[in-house]
Amino acid sequence: MDSHDARTPDPRHHVVILGGGFGGLAVARGLADSQARITLVDRRNHHLFQPLLYQVATAGLSAPSIAAPLRQILRKQANATVLMDEALGVDLAARRVQLAQGELRYDTLVVATGSTHAYFGHDEWERYAPGLKTLDDAFTIRRRVLTAFERAEREDDPAQRQAWLNFVVVGGGATGVELAGTLAEISRHTLPREFRRADPRKANVLLVEAGPRLLPAFDPSLSDKARRQLEKLGVEVRLGTAVTAIGADGVTLGDTPYPARTVLWGAGVAASPLGKHLAAPVDRAGRVQVTADLSLPDHPEVFVIGDLACVPLPDGKLVPGVAPAAKQMGRYVATLIKARWRGATLPPFRYRDDGALATIGRMAAVAQFGRLKLSGLLAWWVWLVAHIAFLIGFRNRLVVMLDWAWAYWTYQRHARIVTGSDTPIAKPLPSEAEHGQ
Amino acid sequence: MDSHDARTPDPRHHVVILGGGFGGLAVARGLADSQARITLVDRRNHHLFQPLLYQVATAGLSAPSIAAPLRQILRKQANATVLMDEALGVDLAARRVQLAQGELRYDTLVVATGSTHAYFGHDEWERYAPGLKTLDDAFTIRRRVLTAFERAEREDDPAQRQAWLNFVVVGGGATGVELAGTLAEISRHTLPREFRRADPRKANVLLVEAGPRLLPAFDPSLSDKARRQLEKLGVEVRLGTAVTAIGADGVTLGDTPYPARTVLWGAGVAASPLGKHLAAPVDRAGRVQVTADLSLPDHPEVFVIGDLACVPLPDGKLVPGVAPAAKQMGRYVATLIKARWRGATLPPFRYRDDGALATIGRMAAVAQFGRLKLSGLLAWWVWLVAHIAFLIGFRNRLVVMLDWAWAYWTYQRHARIVTGSDTPIAKPLPSEAEHGQ
Repeated sequence: MDSHDARTPDPRHHVVILGGGFGGLAVARGLADSQARITLVDRRNHHLFQPLLYQVATAGLSAPSIAAPLRQILRKQANATVLMDEALGVDLAARRVQLAQGELRYDTLVVATGSTHAYFGHDEWERYAPGLKTLDDAFTIRRRVLTAFERAEREDDPAQRQAWLNFVVVGGGATGVELAGTLAEISRHTLPREFRRADPRKANVLLVEAGPRLLPAFDPSLSDKARRQLEKLGVEVRLGTAVTAIGADGVTLGDTPYPARTVLWGAGVAASPLGKHLAAPVDRAGRVQVTADLSLPDHPEVFVIGDLACVPLPDGKLVPGVAPAAKQMGRYVATLIKARWRGATLPPFRYRDDGALATIGRMAAVAQFGRLKLSGLLAWWVWLVAHIAFLIGFRNRLVVMLDWAWAYWTYQRHARIVTGSDTPIAKPLPSEAEHGQ
Repeated sequence: MDSHDARTPDPRHHVVILGGGFGGLAVARGLADSQARITLVDRRNHHLFQPLLYQVATAGLSAPSIAAPLRQILRKQANATVLMDEALGVDLAARRVQLAQGELRYDTLVVATGSTHAYFGHDEWERYAPGLKTLDDAFTIRRRVLTAFERAEREDDPAQRQAWLNFVVVGGGATGVELAGTLAEISRHTLPREFRRADPRKANVLLVEAGPRLLPAFDPSLSDKARRQLEKLGVEVRLGTAVTAIGADGVTLGDTPYPARTVLWGAGVAASPLGKHLAAPVDRAGRVQVTADLSLPDHPEVFVIGDLACVPLPDGKLVPGVAPAAKQMGRYVATLIKARWRGATLPPFRYRDDGALATIGRMAAVAQFGRLKLSGLLAWWVWLVAHIAFLIGFRNRLVVMLDWAWAYWTYQRHARIVTGSDTPIAKPLPSEAEHGQ
C-alpha cells in the first residue's frame, strides 16, 4: 500500500529514545503505527509516575503502585525494544550513542533524560538533605523521616529529642509543599498514639523558601492560599529566607542556626548532564536550547524534549518542567518524525497549558486553569481525580484508590516500612552511651 | 480488686521482649490484659509476614503488603513500648540487655530473635547466593533476578547469554521450592513477550538439594509430588547433589561446574547469634536448649522462643522453625508469666501440629494435616486461604487478594521494579566493551 510505504520510507530507520519518562514514552507510543525500529534506553527498568513520588517518600504508597516496567508498558508494541542501560555520551557526527554497556547507532535520536536535583554549588549538602527524583530517593527520605521519630523516642535529652522532631524542607515549589504538608499530617494524625515517650505532635515542620512566595508557577493569590493552608496543617512557612548552610545538626537560615536532624531538599533541579554533550547552547539550569521544532540547531535528526529542553513561551517564560509538557513534546516529535517520512513538516511546537495543580495535604490543594483558580477541598478533589486518571495501568489506579481511601478514613499510611540502611550522617550523641531506661 | 492485684503483683514488673516476629508479638499481645510494663525491641520497625517473603523477592507483592509497623500493631496496647534498636548481649546476673543505643533492665526477658541464613562455613558464598530472611534480602533477590533477564537481552555471546538465563536455587526446603517454582513461572509466563533478543523461555531453573528429597518436613509421598509438580512447571530438580563451590560464574555440583549468573540460597538457617550469650547449651544450628517451660535452665525469668529455641518433640525430632510454632510458644510464655504472678504454674509446653503447607507455583502446592495429605490444586487453594487469613491487618489481606487475583488472570507481577544497586559481583565481560547493535 502506498500510504503505508509513505509512512515509513525506510523500514530499518532506527529511532533511539534516551529516557523512559513521560516524554520518551510518548515518542515510543507515537511511533507505534510506524515500521521504524525503536530502541528505548533507560537506566532503570521502570517508568515512574513522578507526580506521586512524594507519597512513596512519605509512606502513603508502595513503590510498585506508581511504577511500571517499561518492557511491560511496551510489550505489545513489536517495533520497540527496551534496553536497561545508561547513556554516557552522544557522537553527533557518527550518529552513535555511547552506553555504559556498549553503543547504539541511530538515524533519529530523541534525548529525554530529564532532570536531577541541584544544590547550587553545594554538592556537600546532598548527604544531609536528600532530594526526590527516583524511587531510591523516596526510600531514603522515608527511612530518614520514620527513623527520626524512632530516634526521638530513644532520646532523653530534651534538646536532642526536639532536634529529631524538627524537620526542615528547603524549597517552596510543588515538591517542597507536598512534602511539608504530608510531614505535618503524619506527625499530627498518623503517629501520635504510637509513641510512649516522645510526642510526635511536638514535631516542627519548617518550609523555607528563598523567594517571596510559594509555588511560583501559580498565580500569587494561590501562592498565598497555599501558605495559609499549609499553616493550618501545622507547617511553619518562612519566605524570603535563604539557607546558607546544611549539616548533620541542622540548617543555617541567614545567620541563625536551626537544629534539625532531618532536612529534605526540594529547592533546585538541574537538567541531565547528557545535555552538555549535544553541541548546543544550554541555559543556566543545563537545559538545551532547541529550535522551534525541538531539534538541535544543526542536527534536525536529534530532538531534545521534556525537562531537558529549554523551550521559550510567547511571553518569554519557559515551558514548565511538568509531565503534561513532556508528553506534549513527545507526541509532537513522534508526529513530526512521521511527517518527515512523508516528505512533509509541521508548524513549530506549541505548548498547550492544561492548567496546574499542586496538592498541599489532606483536603488542601491549589489549582489553576486559565483564569479559573481553585483552592481547598474542591482543588483537592480535582487533583485526586486527575492523578488517578493519569496513572498508567488500570491495576495501579485501583490500588492507589484503595490506598488513599484507606488512608483517608484511618489516617494510617500503609507503607511505613523502613528498609535499607543509611550512611550514618549523625555524629554519635554523647548521651547515647549512657542511655538507659 | 483482689483478682486484679493477683494478676499483677508488681505493676512495675518489666517484661522485655527481644524480636517482633510471630513469637515476640504473641508474647506482647498475650500480656495485653496485665499491668506489667512491656518493652518490645526490634532492629526493624516492622513485623514481617515471612511466609510470603518469597513473593516480594519474585516481584509478586510489594513490601508494605506483607509488613506492618510494630508500633501500629501495638498502638492500642497502652502497656507496651516499642523500641527500634538492636540487642547485642544479655547480662543474666544483672538482668540487663545491652542494646546498640543503650541498655534495658528487665524482670522477665523473652528472647525471640529468630534465625538467619547459614552458609555452612562458606560465608564467602553469601555475596554470590543471597538468602531470604528480610525485606532487604527480598529486594536484593528481586534486583538480581530482574537484572539477569536485562543482561541476557544485552548479551551477544550465546554462552554468556545462557549464563544470565541460568538460575540455580540451592536447597530444597520450602523457600527453595517456592523460589524455584516462581522463577519458572516468571520465565515461562510473565516475561516472554517483553524481550526482543533473549528468550526468557530459554531460562533454566535448577533446584539443587543435597539430601534425598525435597521438603524433608513433609511425608515422603508429598516430597515426590512436589518434585513432579516443580518439573511440570519447568524446574530441573537435582536431588542428592552437593554444591561444592559458588562464585560469580556459577556453581560447582560435585566436580561439575554449572554456569549461572544468578544463584539463590535456601539451604541453611542458623539461630540468631544472641543465643550464644545466654549461658545455656546450644545445638549445632545455634538453637538454645531450653527447659520444658521454654525458660533457661538456671534462669526461670528468661525465656527463649521461636526459631531460636531448641524444643524436642516426644518422637525425638524438634519443634519446626515455623510461624505457628513461634506463635504457640509466645502464647504459652505469656500465659505462664501471668500464672506465675498468681503464684501458679503451667504444665510443660506442648507443640500442637496444625499441619504443614508449602506452595510450589501456580495451582501447585502440598499440604499435610495429620494423616490427610493433599497436593496440586486443592492444596494450593488451602494454602491461599490460610495465608490470606493469617496476614495481619484487614487492609493487607485485601491488597494481597487483589494482587493475586490480578496476577492469576494476567500472569503479570506488579512489583517488577528494580531499585537500589548491587555490589557488582560479575567480572566485566570481555564482550561488553565492543558490544554494539
